[in-house]
Amino acid sequence: MIDLSGMISDSKAGPLYQQIVAALRRRISEGSLGLGTRLPSSRALAQDLGVARSTVVTAYDQLVAEGFAETRQGSGIFVCDVAPIRPPEAAAQPAAAVPPPVPGLLLPGAPDPDVFPARPWARCVSRVARMAPMSLSHQEDAFGDPELRREIAAYAARWRGIECSAEQVLVTSGAREALELTMEFLVEGEDIALEAPGFTPTQRFAQARGWRVHWLRTGARGAEVPQQMAKVTLLTPSHQFPLGGTLPVPQRQAFLQAAKARDGWIIEDDFDSEFRYGGQPVPAMAALDGEGRCIYVGTFSKTFSHALRLGYAILPSALVPQFRAQFIHPSAGAAITAQRPLAEFMASGQYDRHIRRARRLYAERYAAAAEALAEWPESLGYFHRHNAGMQIAFHLKESQNDTEICRRTAEAGYGVRPLSPHDPECAAQGLLIGFCQSPADDLPGQVAGLRRIVEGRR
Amino acid sequence: MIDLSGMISDSKAGPLYQQIVAALRRRISEGSLGLGTRLPSSRALAQDLGVARSTVVTAYDQLVAEGFAETRQGSGIFVCDVAPIRPPEAAAQPAAAVPPPVPGLLLPGAPDPDVFPARPWARCVSRVARMAPMSLSHQEDAFGDPELRREIAAYAARWRGIECSAEQVLVTSGAREALELTMEFLVEGEDIALEAPGFTPTQRFAQARGWRVHWLRTGARGAEVPQQMAKVTLLTPSHQFPLGGTLPVPQRQAFLQAAKARDGWIIEDDFDSEFRYGGQPVPAMAALDGEGRCIYVGTFSKTFSHALRLGYAILPSALVPQFRAQFIHPSAGAAITAQRPLAEFMASGQYDRHIRRARRLYAERYAAAAEALAEWPESLGYFHRHNAGMQIAFHLKESQNDTEICRRTAEAGYGVRPLSPHDPECAAQGLLIGFCQSPADDLPGQVAGLRRIVEGRR
Repeated sequence: MIDLSGMISDSKAGPLYQQIVAALRRRISEGSLGLGTRLPSSRALAQDLGVARSTVVTAYDQLVAEGFAETRQGSGIFVCDVAPIRPPEAAAQPAAAVPPPVPGLLLPGAPDPDVFPARPWARCVSRVARMAPMSLSHQEDAFGDPELRREIAAYAARWRGIECSAEQVLVTSGAREALELTMEFLVEGEDIALEAPGFTPTQRFAQARGWRVHWLRTGARGAEVPQQMAKVTLLTPSHQFPLGGTLPVPQRQAFLQAAKARDGWIIEDDFDSEFRYGGQPVPAMAALDGEGRCIYVGTFSKTFSHALRLGYAILPSALVPQFRAQFIHPSAGAAITAQRPLAEFMASGQYDRHIRRARRLYAERYAAAAEALAEWPESLGYFHRHNAGMQIAFHLKESQNDTEICRRTAEAGYGVRPLSPHDPECAAQGLLIGFCQSPADDLPGQVAGLRRIVEGRR
Repeated sequence: MIDLSGMISDSKAGPLYQQIVAALRRRISEGSLGLGTRLPSSRALAQDLGVARSTVVTAYDQLVAEGFAETRQGSGIFVCDVAPIRPPEAAAQPAAAVPPPVPGLLLPGAPDPDVFPARPWARCVSRVARMAPMSLSHQEDAFGDPELRREIAAYAARWRGIECSAEQVLVTSGAREALELTMEFLVEGEDIALEAPGFTPTQRFAQARGWRVHWLRTGARGAEVPQQMAKVTLLTPSHQFPLGGTLPVPQRQAFLQAAKARDGWIIEDDFDSEFRYGGQPVPAMAALDGEGRCIYVGTFSKTFSHALRLGYAILPSALVPQFRAQFIHPSAGAAITAQRPLAEFMASGQYDRHIRRARRLYAERYAAAAEALAEWPESLGYFHRHNAGMQIAFHLKESQNDTEICRRTAEAGYGVRPLSPHDPECAAQGLLIGFCQSPADDLPGQVAGLRRIVEGRR
């Protein structure tokens, strides 16, 4: 006979069966119902407590599911071996509020969030919620929202010279996912060529998969076609990451021809090509590709907002059916909520206007940063004026240690990053210096402050 | 002297410098301006064309950036070696419209999109767009929207018995990202224990990183604590994936104690625990954890919508500062757009109502599917009635080949999946059979159709 008197009552909070579970759980945890004790039959306990038998059956099922008790066929329900449960004191103390760290001044590769058209964007989201509510939650197609794919195809033609249809566009959670998906799909256990210096996450991704990796040594004007072409070659032709150069057209053509000869592929990572401050944007490599050998990868993280987590791949037509067969389920990580609103934003012309405005601002900031950096003495290093992108690569003398310098600059509130971790082979030292997040008037002072730290004067 | 007559005009579309670029590019591509030709000085060409000299300078800069020409210090600008550019014919043909494949009947682990409250959700998004427009684009904190983190903490206490503060919550793009981030952070080159059978993407992730992996053999009632505890142990205690069992409380406590003794960690993947069809949800393992050794991982993909791509980790308080130091930039992949709306949806009580409604429906469907499967002959195999989750694991006889069977069922329009790929060690054959996406009335017919294919009668 188990005494649960006072523990079960209609007037208490919660359903009766939960009260029974809680009461028995407590008895078991305290040890007052020991290992191997047979619980009363559900009929007996129900009578005893004055509740329906089904209530007790539900409670027993729950205790068994939780592992406090077990059913022995034909002989009833028995208490299991449960060590007394210690109340989770530590967890009950709230974590101290750690303030989120500040990303820092002169952060490379990051757009200015204040330039983002937050209110027009919110109006656009609200309009879509009213006019096309299902589009905010229902993903019919693993390749992404059909309207957004159409707008991306039109954009790629308008800004990058790529002739393609919406069918070829695969929406992803950013350039990185697009790169990883296409690499995974196309390398097929063979080899891959990556730029050095290059984009560290992609380098790590390829190495972690055990692929044979060839390094394409990359200078101010991009990589040369290697003797031995890899199955997949990943390039940043419009604006090399992180050095900033543009791959000349002859080399682009040579890469495309070599890829065809090898029955291989070029993945073009075109992450920030919209931001050229001299002349018009250089047409994409995919625009030169007559043989369907080039997969184009773009992102909204640089032009629009990293917080939306949207990017895309444009596949050669011939690859679309093969990718389709892989993406039966929406496994690419792009969230649906922002997709239709972004399509509307692009269709209305607001997106292009935003880019032009951001480009004007960043051009001023680029000029201010480059002018300030030009005053640094030659004894520190040098940089190329690429007139493009969202960062300047400042090459330090070999004797310097960029990682060590960046530890000091971080302490002083700067977000500049070291160059050397981008190169797995060679220890070229340098600083990646951003400028997009600072008003042009502030840049001379910020760059001068940085110099003092680099020179060890502070 | 270069003759560009008729190619440049004020009345033509586009800025003059672009017309000059286009005209010179064409001449170079055609070969009429050969390799090594020196271009006229900017002054001369400007005079010749009757345009400002700066216009020609801009055009030349662009040609150099594109690689059609190069500057030789002190001697002018020369044409580079450019093979004639073939028009991209192949790419210009639009890709054939490949219809997105249908995921198939009885798809395991997938919620019913028709149960999703699409209109209330859209109204909630619209309201947030009007009331808090900045929240739809600006991410202040790498850990996620503060309101959403608060709601998740309250939800975890309400439904899973976990006492925690919003500070401990890290919003991610889904359970998988939360698992990968926490594994990466905590394993530190040491070893990891994973369930077998278990979640294949996590198994692949750990193996690709070269960590030492111990397999925890997992039966209907979960894994036993191994002799040698790993640095990190990943468990699905509430509802083992893919078998469906519940880890008994004594084993949970033993794992927590062993983790403490080893100075190690438990990652609790609690992916679909809300869907228990007998009794209340079993409290989470993290709710028993008094020592701050358990990282809890949850997801909105099962309870709400996979298309939103949102999940979370709840960290022990002591780990928060270390994670903070890693996440200076919002590098976790959760898009911002749906975060504040989801917080509002949860705060209003609509989210809990939705889960209760989905659970009622799935309980009916579970019962219908289990009843239909109970009619399959013993000669085919067996299953356990776990009364939980979004799929039933049907164990086939060893002589069967589940992958081969699933090829046949896929051809017939079924989405059931083979069990054996989830187990890297042992070839236990089985089928993972979903039921959430079919009305209860349709399930007997669908399950009977599946049986005919499994038996080779169709």
